[in-house]
Amino acid sequence: MADEKGLTPRAEDFSAWYNEVVLRAELADYSPVRGSMVIRPYGYALWENMQRALDAMFKETGHQNAYFPLFIPQSFLAREAEHVEGFAKEMAVVTHSRLKSVPEGGLVPDPDSRLEEPLVVRPTSETIIYAMFAKWVQSYRDLPLLINQWANVVRWEMRTRLFLRTTEFLWQEGHTAHATEEEAEEEARRMHGVYRTFMDDWMAMPPVVGRKTESEKFPGAVRTYALEALMQDNRALQAGTSHMLGQNFSRQFDLKFQTEEGGEAYAWNTSWGVSTRLIGALVMTHGDDAGLVVPPRLAPYQVVLVPIFRTDEERARVMEKADAVSAALRQDAVRVHVDARENLTPGAKFYEWERKGVPLRVEVGPKDVAREQLVLVRRIEEGDGPRKAFVAEAEALATIPARLDAIQQAMLTAAVRRRDENSYRGVEDYGRFREIVEGVGGFVYTGWCGGARCEEKVKEETRATIRVLPFEEFRSPEAPGRCIACGGEAVEEALWARAY
Amino acid sequence: MADEKGLTPRAEDFSAWYNEVVLRAELADYSPVRGSMVIRPYGYALWENMQRALDAMFKETGHQNAYFPLFIPQSFLAREAEHVEGFAKEMAVVTHSRLKSVPEGGLVPDPDSRLEEPLVVRPTSETIIYAMFAKWVQSYRDLPLLINQWANVVRWEMRTRLFLRTTEFLWQEGHTAHATEEEAEEEARRMHGVYRTFMDDWMAMPPVVGRKTESEKFPGAVRTYALEALMQDNRALQAGTSHMLGQNFSRQFDLKFQTEEGGEAYAWNTSWGVSTRLIGALVMTHGDDAGLVVPPRLAPYQVVLVPIFRTDEERARVMEKADAVSAALRQDAVRVHVDARENLTPGAKFYEWERKGVPLRVEVGPKDVAREQLVLVRRIEEGDGPRKAFVAEAEALATIPARLDAIQQAMLTAAVRRRDENSYRGVEDYGRFREIVEGVGGFVYTGWCGGARCEEKVKEETRATIRVLPFEEFRSPEAPGRCIACGGEAVEEALWARAY
Repeated sequence: MADEKGLTPRAEDFSAWYNEVVLRAELADYSPVRGSMVIRPYGYALWENMQRALDAMFKETGHQNAYFPLFIPQSFLAREAEHVEGFAKEMAVVTHSRLKSVPEGGLVPDPDSRLEEPLVVRPTSETIIYAMFAKWVQSYRDLPLLINQWANVVRWEMRTRLFLRTTEFLWQEGHTAHATEEEAEEEARRMHGVYRTFMDDWMAMPPVVGRKTESEKFPGAVRTYALEALMQDNRALQAGTSHMLGQNFSRQFDLKFQTEEGGEAYAWNTSWGVSTRLIGALVMTHGDDAGLVVPPRLAPYQVVLVPIFRTDEERARVMEKADAVSAALRQDAVRVHVDARENLTPGAKFYEWERKGVPLRVEVGPKDVAREQLVLVRRIEEGDGPRKAFVAEAEALATIPARLDAIQQAMLTAAVRRRDENSYRGVEDYGRFREIVEGVGGFVYTGWCGGARCEEKVKEETRATIRVLPFEEFRSPEAPGRCIACGGEAVEEALWARAY
Repeated sequence: MADEKGLTPRAEDFSAWYNEVVLRAELADYSPVRGSMVIRPYGYALWENMQRALDAMFKETGHQNAYFPLFIPQSFLAREAEHVEGFAKEMAVVTHSRLKSVPEGGLVPDPDSRLEEPLVVRPTSETIIYAMFAKWVQSYRDLPLLINQWANVVRWEMRTRLFLRTTEFLWQEGHTAHATEEEAEEEARRMHGVYRTFMDDWMAMPPVVGRKTESEKFPGAVRTYALEALMQDNRALQAGTSHMLGQNFSRQFDLKFQTEEGGEAYAWNTSWGVSTRLIGALVMTHGDDAGLVVPPRLAPYQVVLVPIFRTDEERARVMEKADAVSAALRQDAVRVHVDARENLTPGAKFYEWERKGVPLRVEVGPKDVAREQLVLVRRIEEGDGPRKAFVAEAEALATIPARLDAIQQAMLTAAVRRRDENSYRGVEDYGRFREIVEGVGGFVYTGWCGGARCEEKVKEETRATIRVLPFEEFRSPEAPGRCIACGGEAVEEALWARAY
């Protein structure tokens, strides 16, 4: 423990702090493959918990999982003009199907195995999925078709950040087809709502929700709904999107159906996704200078129990108690881990589990066994009572599930407060606007004339972008009257920030 | 229903039957991407159930999931000579990171984006994973390292079959590192045993287990343990493998650790995997001329309830009962689906669910409601009592879980019987041997001198290969004395078959 270097404080260098937390909490590691990372077991366990929660919500809303090819023929991508324009510059292209040895040693792609048509590694799967939907959908009776895929995708990135921007990442992508525009719109909004519930209730990360502007929407979508969360460095992070695709893809892939009236019509599509980027968002929402902080509902371990002893005799008594306590907690569906490693001091274990963000630590020593008590230590300061408490064993066992709920709630409350404290409304002066976004940062709500030129100008001058045009509940009580850029009449309220 | 064409009978054309079952049970579909398939929701649900069962077994044996890059630098593959030799001819090679438009229309890989070193889409992940292990392992205290990955892999295939042989497939690959040879050997055997338990107890598909010959082992392994199942056309299918890799990879990737005694040593590795190929194996083990048959423990729907009614009044009564029955079954953790579709006759529904292999059908009509009874129809003939039974409702509800267990057991018993009936022992005459493998097919046990030349000769002449050198319990009571090929002294008993 003594030789463990502390983390760079957030206030000193947020970016360095972030990388150190990810690496030292063993969420992920750099790989020898340019732009790709390795998700380590602790990070993957977090992702599995996210998947489990989301997957249940998708199934409750009538979706089924399926799996589509990794490779997409280049010509498929090209069919939807905006879509290919949006992705062509960052695609991994497969051109050969074989390697061969060369006399000078080593391997090269075998020229004889060059593919007639290059294949692209999916950056997203609209094209291949709607091509299949066209095969499966004949009649209105086959609609709606509600599919989700858990998969890896590749977008070639020049500047990468662990979890936030990597060439390969894991995600889910929902793809649906509907008989009417209204149903598709409803679906896009419903899944946007599912994401919001997940971020609020599971991640304790309260996003602002709304619609993207034309310039920021998904390439190929009619409308994109997004969820924007505020990180602790006051930059925004796009945490999820849900797209109303209209008939843009169904027209290109001939996804038609026979209507109830006997006519023929193109289906209406939606797609929606969240990715392992959420792990980065979670780190930057809740982490502190001691490391990661994981909300209890997603924590791989909600409770870590550290036995403390010196002699073999103490060891026997303490381990017996530790096993009994962990068995009792498991009965209550608490995810508990007993850290029985012998080559580490208790202090080193405390330090490690704090760094890994485990919500609640339980310490048991010989005195605690004698007194029938447990020492409970919260990861976060916020909450009822002191962070460290000596609690009668029976009471501790009875209250740990509620304590975890309270921690979850306290984390959400703190995150909402932080978001709101760093949100600025009623900003009408462009100088003041720039002062905020180029200074302390945060969410800035302003009027906007709806003009792409104003949006572009602000972006160029300040690097702030319109994150969303917020939904009603996030709009300012008094609608702003003037566009922040041109001073013309405002037609929308816009939420601006610099973003990841 | 009337216009539904029946399936090609197995006896007429097994291969056509197989494709029809896969397509018409909606397990999978062909995709527009050469060699790649789409796993449809019903097939994917089956895979999810397989994953859930296996994942729990992996975790019970101390493994953790993680995720490693899809792309592997070409030079990594090249380090282990046998390994690259085994895979180089079937690799998807990524050479560019961008597409660009050309004046004559369309897109081409942008020459300016050519990668310095081509990347290979993982055909398996030993190289990249052991490169990471080398980073994580310093001391004997870091061992054993027990990792599993659920992932997609790509092996370029010229002749593909749905599930059995596709360019891309889904699998899990376990990768472990150990301090001693003994521990690694134990691990390779343990996971081989886990697969066997899964195939016996979950898939009702009893494999013969044993060791691969030198010529059939995994490229880069010291020893490969395999599980071979007999399909209904009497061809063998390799259903899973577990490899003792020795120090072959640890030497190439410098995976060293400090020993307890203070020295330095290379770690010992194992790897093991099963894939979506198991779905194909399941089809060919249990399917019949009416379609798929799914063992209850893996079935997406264990029970499908078909309500039968004519009038609205009947509909109300029957649906009320259907809902009550399905709610009661769900309480008992039975996966039940009520098929309430209005545009299909009951007959069409029966036909569809038989084709999809649902273990138990429950029919409820107005008369059944009045008599407080349910009609239970097993998918398989085997079992106690008639296939179709009228059972008092209370009794039916109380016994359905046990009936499902009995179906699971009956399927295993039937599969063991079929395997054993098509196994030949004590074959000493090469003419007789050829007569079997080139005729009816099946598993043929013979003596083998251990010579690669004899193995190769038999393979060339008969297309039969040594599937495994079976473990003790599968060997013949009397050890065969002579090699089937050369007549020389047998040193091993070999199991031969033509294989998928």
